[in-house]
Amino acid sequence: MEITLESPLDMHLHLRDGEMLKLTAPLSAAFAGAVVMPNLVPPVTTPQMMSAYAERVHAALEGAAFTPYMALFFTALDEAALAAAKATPGFFGLKLYPAGITTNSEGGVANLKEADRTLHIMEEMGIPLLVHGESHGFVMDREQEFLAVYRDLATRFPKLTISMEHITTAAAVKLLDEFPNLCATVTLQHLLITLDDVAGGALQPHLFCKPIAKRPEDREALLSAVLGGHGRIMFGSDSAPHPRHRKEACGCAAGVFTAPLALPKLAELFASHGALDKLQGFVSGNARRIYGLNPVEKKVTLHDVPMQVPAAYKGYGETVVPIYAGQEIGWSVK
Amino acid sequence: MEITLESPLDMHLHLRDGEMLKLTAPLSAAFAGAVVMPNLVPPVTTPQMMSAYAERVHAALEGAAFTPYMALFFTALDEAALAAAKATPGFFGLKLYPAGITTNSEGGVANLKEADRTLHIMEEMGIPLLVHGESHGFVMDREQEFLAVYRDLATRFPKLTISMEHITTAAAVKLLDEFPNLCATVTLQHLLITLDDVAGGALQPHLFCKPIAKRPEDREALLSAVLGGHGRIMFGSDSAPHPRHRKEACGCAAGVFTAPLALPKLAELFASHGALDKLQGFVSGNARRIYGLNPVEKKVTLHDVPMQVPAAYKGYGETVVPIYAGQEIGWSVK
Repeated sequence: MEITLESPLDMHLHLRDGEMLKLTAPLSAAFAGAVVMPNLVPPVTTPQMMSAYAERVHAALEGAAFTPYMALFFTALDEAALAAAKATPGFFGLKLYPAGITTNSEGGVANLKEADRTLHIMEEMGIPLLVHGESHGFVMDREQEFLAVYRDLATRFPKLTISMEHITTAAAVKLLDEFPNLCATVTLQHLLITLDDVAGGALQPHLFCKPIAKRPEDREALLSAVLGGHGRIMFGSDSAPHPRHRKEACGCAAGVFTAPLALPKLAELFASHGALDKLQGFVSGNARRIYGLNPVEKKVTLHDVPMQVPAAYKGYGETVVPIYAGQEIGWSVK
Repeated sequence: MEITLESPLDMHLHLRDGEMLKLTAPLSAAFAGAVVMPNLVPPVTTPQMMSAYAERVHAALEGAAFTPYMALFFTALDEAALAAAKATPGFFGLKLYPAGITTNSEGGVANLKEADRTLHIMEEMGIPLLVHGESHGFVMDREQEFLAVYRDLATRFPKLTISMEHITTAAAVKLLDEFPNLCATVTLQHLLITLDDVAGGALQPHLFCKPIAKRPEDREALLSAVLGGHGRIMFGSDSAPHPRHRKEACGCAAGVFTAPLALPKLAELFASHGALDKLQGFVSGNARRIYGLNPVEKKVTLHDVPMQVPAAYKGYGETVVPIYAGQEIGWSVK
């Protein structure tokens, strides 16, 4: 069995910077492009910082045909600043983080009401809003508690395209039905694991991420929507590399590194449910339609020949442990 | 402020064996005694193994006045075997583990119906049953799913004293109201933390245990019952030492090491809620009344003078990291 995907896109990717960027960027090169997250230290808040980061990303790609769609870290920009951002090559949209909610988000938005003016201009200018949608509540409730914010934003800014990033709950999937201006990304791991896999047996730091994996019925709802070909759910890996020593330690950092094997594993998953025909829409078609993207033409053929996942990806002095490290998965790139 | 406790008891303690036992036993010596859990490798299943283990515990205590109440790992014993166990000095009761549910429980009970005959004899002989009450379901539901088993056992064996060990949920607290033959132990950590503390920020392996810490409303229910002086809830630390390298690693083992600071931290907690007068019952009185225990006379005075918790307890080639490692807690032993 095999499938050829046309220009797959990863709509939520962390490439990091410096030596880590040099290691990770080529590991996403099976994709035609990705939305590159701006939560560096310091965060990417200006068009100048964004252009400079995009250049570093391009350099790290070593000539691979791959379009980085650059996200700007949300701050209360005015019309001139948003116009400047929009005019900057590579600009994709603004990524909003509630302050302190995840890795390097300390400079995020503490009071959403102060974002209103910027959101209004974004709506006028057709700039997408990407949101890390979690409250500061109990870890299993954070996404569901944040849905009221999505509901409020979607109501008050009906022409703003709002992406609920890396959704993990049945309730978030359901919210898509209420507002046509909402869309969502879903990661690989949230289609595969629940909290049981993170903390039900021994503790598994390499499966620990934010939002944390939820309940079985949440995973079922995500799977059911994605395998059913939901038109407003896009693949966004949220692949989030950390150096091994920051994962395998007390106070392990949040993030699952999936980029290098996301496409084969997705193909395996979709095939196992007889839904391979829905994969193209999930990994490319929906995003192209929602955002009007025209990524570079790239074909990737995947087949049901197993691959051995490396115990770690190493290079440039960095070591990153992927999901399924040292294990075999059922599909591979042909 | 200070309080003097009379013969405090830890009704659920893991001392391990070998070098680790030599390190941990003296660290529980502020207590007058403890129920010592039998999930060694291999588990303590016979009176002979139990006697030998009790001797090793006594040796490790280095003369401290401390009574180990020995629990036998539940297997389908017949009348003769139970009589032999009961006649063995130090014997306390049987500890039932569903097979594979926690550390070294692989030899536990796979089919509870096969335990009926043994339970019937225990009921006749007045031997207490201690239970690790978790199903094999989703990690946050395991205790609640097991309540049906407690309900069934408590109904069918009305004279059997059944202790729901280390309860973590509001539902388990509530079940105590239904059956006078049910009692329960509660750990230190489940009065203090929720899943948020384990996995809400960075991942904290030293707070990872089974049953896993639950929701805020569960902790509130436990606290409320204990601080209110519930007569059938006893302190059982479930203090569960693991070598540091097994906690601070991928696939971290389950267990929180609390024994050396349990009494000061409990005093701080009870005092902060104005409930110091309920501490004696929780850490000794309830257990003495429920089981008819007469521990050695020992007085421990605690006062609100801070103590620095060591970064680790070391000895005999072992290193164990306690809860609050390297932090200050508000009370100490006087």
